[in-house]
Amino acid sequence: MRISNRFITIEGIDGCGKSTQAEMLSDWLSLRFGKNKVVKTYEPGGSGNEIRNILLNSSMSERSELLLFLADRMEHVQNIILPALCENKWVICERYIDSTIVYQSFGRGIPACEIERLFAWCEFPVPQLTIYLDVPVDVAVSRVDSRGNKDRIESVGIEFIRKIYSAYKQLSIDRKRIVRVDASLDIHKVADSVRNVLEERFELKS
Amino acid sequence: MRISNRFITIEGIDGCGKSTQAEMLSDWLSLRFGKNKVVKTYEPGGSGNEIRNILLNSSMSERSELLLFLADRMEHVQNIILPALCENKWVICERYIDSTIVYQSFGRGIPACEIERLFAWCEFPVPQLTIYLDVPVDVAVSRVDSRGNKDRIESVGIEFIRKIYSAYKQLSIDRKRIVRVDASLDIHKVADSVRNVLEERFELKS
Repeated sequence: MRISNRFITIEGIDGCGKSTQAEMLSDWLSLRFGKNKVVKTYEPGGSGNEIRNILLNSSMSERSELLLFLADRMEHVQNIILPALCENKWVICERYIDSTIVYQSFGRGIPACEIERLFAWCEFPVPQLTIYLDVPVDVAVSRVDSRGNKDRIESVGIEFIRKIYSAYKQLSIDRKRIVRVDASLDIHKVADSVRNVLEERFELKS
Repeated sequence: MRISNRFITIEGIDGCGKSTQAEMLSDWLSLRFGKNKVVKTYEPGGSGNEIRNILLNSSMSERSELLLFLADRMEHVQNIILPALCENKWVICERYIDSTIVYQSFGRGIPACEIERLFAWCEFPVPQLTIYLDVPVDVAVSRVDSRGNKDRIESVGIEFIRKIYSAYKQLSIDRKRIVRVDASLDIHKVADSVRNVLEERFELKS
């Protein structure tokens, strides 16, 4: 798998603040490099296809679900991520390969090595940096509750969310690519931490 | 891969008569074994999910398309085919694994060995018998034209259809599971041939 420069993913359980931090990071990078040099995107559904609707609205076996997530990512990578990276743009993506490992392997029991083999077959580019927004389960759940927006994935129950939380924690310890950021603080402090990580990892300090 | 008794698939290019022959075969088996002992189904979309709509109505890369076909089949196998086979029913399925090999490998260039590896991962049951309805390309195309029903897959052009035709021919020579039936004749004669193949393969002669 090739590691792609300027490709940053943001991960964490629902309610950890991924969208907010992706937005703030995108604004910061845009100020520095120009608005047309930053692409902010997300999964599933970032390429505008209809697979996301099936994933969110129907109940299927864990392997069918995995195949759909991969098909969605394949379209997203080919239509959005790779074209932007080829033009030397920054790409900030909410949820990516780690979400699949965490939800489909730790969460739903498909062996991680099988998922990694499928990733290899799909030739997905690997981000140079992944920000893991770590927020306690109870804080995240109360944020999601207050949005009043529970879809299938968000309504899987507290035990499942705890499992996902532990999985993210484990993955962030195992992989150098992933940097943990304390996301329980004020959003501006979290954004500062995220920027510090970028400045260090990409040697952006002026 | 396990071979499943009483699992029959029907293959061939669009316009070869798969639906008609599946119907006639289903009626014949129903008369002999009882209506509740025969399940007639098809791919893609046989399990009633929405993946078929995406496949027929949007344009995507060949690998995304392959993953969607596999997800659709996974649901179909788990919800329709395996439950029926477990109850010792006959299952007649229009299009199955050979369609994927023919269209995605010979047609769109994904190596067959990669597709076979994915099949193995998916643990798809293998039919005991596959009927290949062989009809010349020009006959098939004129039948499809007269239906006035050209979707994305049917409107790929004559050269592509010729390629698919040759691929089916090749596959039917290579694999013992696949029996070629001349489908250019009158539909009742074709149905007779199909029944003869079944009587021989399943030792149904009384």
